[in-house]
Amino acid sequence: MPITTEILTVGDELLRGDLNDTNSTWLAARLFGMGIPVRRIVSLGDDLEPLSGAIEQAIHRGGLVVITGGLGPTDDDRTTCAVARAAKVPLELSNTTLETLRARFASAGYPFTPNNEKQARFPRGAMEIKNSRGTAPGFLLRVGDARVVCLPGVPSEMKAMFDDGVVPLLAQDEAHPAAVRVVRTFGVGESQIDHRLQGLLEAIDADPSEVSLHYRTSFPENQVLLVVRGVADPGATLERFEEEVRRRLSPYVFGVGDVSFSDAVVGALKEAGAKVALAESCTGGLAGDLVTRASGSSSVFELGVVTYSNACKHRMLGVPEEVLEQYGAVSSQCVEAMARGVRDLAKSTYGVAISGVAGPTGGTPEKPVGTVWFGLAHPDGVSHLVRRFPWVHDRQRIKQASAHVALYLVLAHLRDGTDPFEGRWEPGKGGRS
Amino acid sequence: MPITTEILTVGDELLRGDLNDTNSTWLAARLFGMGIPVRRIVSLGDDLEPLSGAIEQAIHRGGLVVITGGLGPTDDDRTTCAVARAAKVPLELSNTTLETLRARFASAGYPFTPNNEKQARFPRGAMEIKNSRGTAPGFLLRVGDARVVCLPGVPSEMKAMFDDGVVPLLAQDEAHPAAVRVVRTFGVGESQIDHRLQGLLEAIDADPSEVSLHYRTSFPENQVLLVVRGVADPGATLERFEEEVRRRLSPYVFGVGDVSFSDAVVGALKEAGAKVALAESCTGGLAGDLVTRASGSSSVFELGVVTYSNACKHRMLGVPEEVLEQYGAVSSQCVEAMARGVRDLAKSTYGVAISGVAGPTGGTPEKPVGTVWFGLAHPDGVSHLVRRFPWVHDRQRIKQASAHVALYLVLAHLRDGTDPFEGRWEPGKGGRS
Repeated sequence: MPITTEILTVGDELLRGDLNDTNSTWLAARLFGMGIPVRRIVSLGDDLEPLSGAIEQAIHRGGLVVITGGLGPTDDDRTTCAVARAAKVPLELSNTTLETLRARFASAGYPFTPNNEKQARFPRGAMEIKNSRGTAPGFLLRVGDARVVCLPGVPSEMKAMFDDGVVPLLAQDEAHPAAVRVVRTFGVGESQIDHRLQGLLEAIDADPSEVSLHYRTSFPENQVLLVVRGVADPGATLERFEEEVRRRLSPYVFGVGDVSFSDAVVGALKEAGAKVALAESCTGGLAGDLVTRASGSSSVFELGVVTYSNACKHRMLGVPEEVLEQYGAVSSQCVEAMARGVRDLAKSTYGVAISGVAGPTGGTPEKPVGTVWFGLAHPDGVSHLVRRFPWVHDRQRIKQASAHVALYLVLAHLRDGTDPFEGRWEPGKGGRS
Repeated sequence: MPITTEILTVGDELLRGDLNDTNSTWLAARLFGMGIPVRRIVSLGDDLEPLSGAIEQAIHRGGLVVITGGLGPTDDDRTTCAVARAAKVPLELSNTTLETLRARFASAGYPFTPNNEKQARFPRGAMEIKNSRGTAPGFLLRVGDARVVCLPGVPSEMKAMFDDGVVPLLAQDEAHPAAVRVVRTFGVGESQIDHRLQGLLEAIDADPSEVSLHYRTSFPENQVLLVVRGVADPGATLERFEEEVRRRLSPYVFGVGDVSFSDAVVGALKEAGAKVALAESCTGGLAGDLVTRASGSSSVFELGVVTYSNACKHRMLGVPEEVLEQYGAVSSQCVEAMARGVRDLAKSTYGVAISGVAGPTGGTPEKPVGTVWFGLAHPDGVSHLVRRFPWVHDRQRIKQASAHVALYLVLAHLRDGTDPFEGRWEPGKGGRS
């Protein structure tokens, strides 16, 4: 059943360019994955007039319009009012929503100001979509053939509400909802992926009218999606897809489906009954943050030490002063000593170390900004690796990529020697760059 | 001269959610900074029909429409054709452009295929906008009162062409570009800000036809913007605005203008000649990541210790085993001992500790998910604070907010006792929740 689907994101901050609109990208991908292609994405400001005009047009076209943003308590959030006006229905106060809001504020110890009451008003006939993470509830309103879905603009709230509250309603309308399988990779660029996956659909004997292949980047990860549409049993096709992609992109694949990078690392450690300890310098703690994004990471991670100064690298991790003087902190010798030091301190299976030049200052001709060394101490010895990231002068991206590399080394070692960074990594005593 | 300005981004990949549309964000910010507010941003696919329809409507509304994408050599790039159709003019081959393209291909050693000729065709009357970085030239077309600007979708090409080729044309029309001042806050919600800033424009005696007030959230921070338009000297108004906002929102303001949270914390430490050390548990290293986002943070931050297990809290930071047994790791006693321990280890001015329940599991009736304790060891003693974050079951947001709170405690102490968390924080020996 083809329907006209639009996404409308609301907020003056979008039109001022203060905020990049990631909500529409996420929603478009979700809807596309469900077999509901989006025809148009529109961003508007908080002015009532153009907002209700655009919603009225979308209602007139029928189909589905998903709106995010403009549900806040302040006067300049006007989405609910605009929907009511476009649908020509009054706003009504929901007493149950009001009580829920009051209770939530009370338990958090925040004062409930009069403008918060606004969030308990909905257009007549709307069905509330609960928000378990924030104060702004959403709603779904049917107007003739059209369905208007309103969600808050805070991405984490919007995503949870869409998946939990909206997807079940939309899925009812689909005879064979699209099936998607996502293969997640790290350490390989999109053009390399494209090169390695040439002819994939022919290789898995997929019917081009039923399947499509897509790439998606979520820095520093790259994803490959296969979408199967209008088929009663897409399972066999998805299996062949996954197997073939794994074959061609091994060892860059870290997970399939709803598995985050942290989940993959923590899961592999748990399965092996192993633990990891971290010695960080330029990443400042980001590798520890990354591993602890997975719930339950406490069973595999007990200790991280962020030694930002040379003195602390020596005092806390036992890096010899001669190493720091002769080779510097950004060197194979230093990361190997850091990795050994933190492994000994934590009495863990693995010790991983990171030391590099995140920039924008501090680079030299020999060690330019983006040069990062990694050390891995494991039960059989210690290894090192250097990466030179080309995103010079983007400090946080260098940190993010480095945190991923550090944890990927553990994953690769757990997989028994698969090498995600061919030729730039030597699992042994010495090492080459 | 108020004009209606729209941005139109073109490409099927945008509607599938494969690519986040950063072009429109960048263009909107550029135009806003030039005093040309954008009224609407639309993303469409590569289909000719809806594309030319949308352009025709924009032309009908008059003003300016900036289009990016769909200028490539392949058949599915249809923007030029859509503009010609909407403007009701034919396409014409530009021989000079054709020669430039041929020469460029020859010098790069690429074959010039027939479809490349497509990029030398423009709607009749268009002015070419040169592309020094790629093959697709852009163009500007005047249709009645409307101006249509077409640029390629590759961000680096688009940005250079906009700044070099489009800005000079648009700037002619503007006498006084808009001036913006941003006040950055942490620890106060948007509805509280709104409440405290009621009547602000009257208080600073601002002319409502020239100034506007806006809020912006960049979790976990909130910002207040004042925009002054069409005024030769906006300085005095911006000064009064900043002073009044500081008065009303103190002590939540951490910076004004282009100052990140990390910049503010690192800057204040530098100014005081002080250093901070971090003892993290539930944040896993995120507070260390946060402080090291500022370049130059190495002069104020030397050591972070992530003690995720109780054993490491005892062994690394000297938290007494009796404290862990009697009160648990999520307690005032534990964070005070952690803060003291890491301050001693690092020999730093401040030691900050974080221990809480990030969830989604591990909560109890006394210590539900979102309960986080903070300890601050300083030259005069040690203090503690508890926060109960209402974003239950969003592990990463609890971590983010906690990392901010931890560093804010240092900032507040450096400011000589200002208290960002009224009533929930006791700077002294004991403490209350």
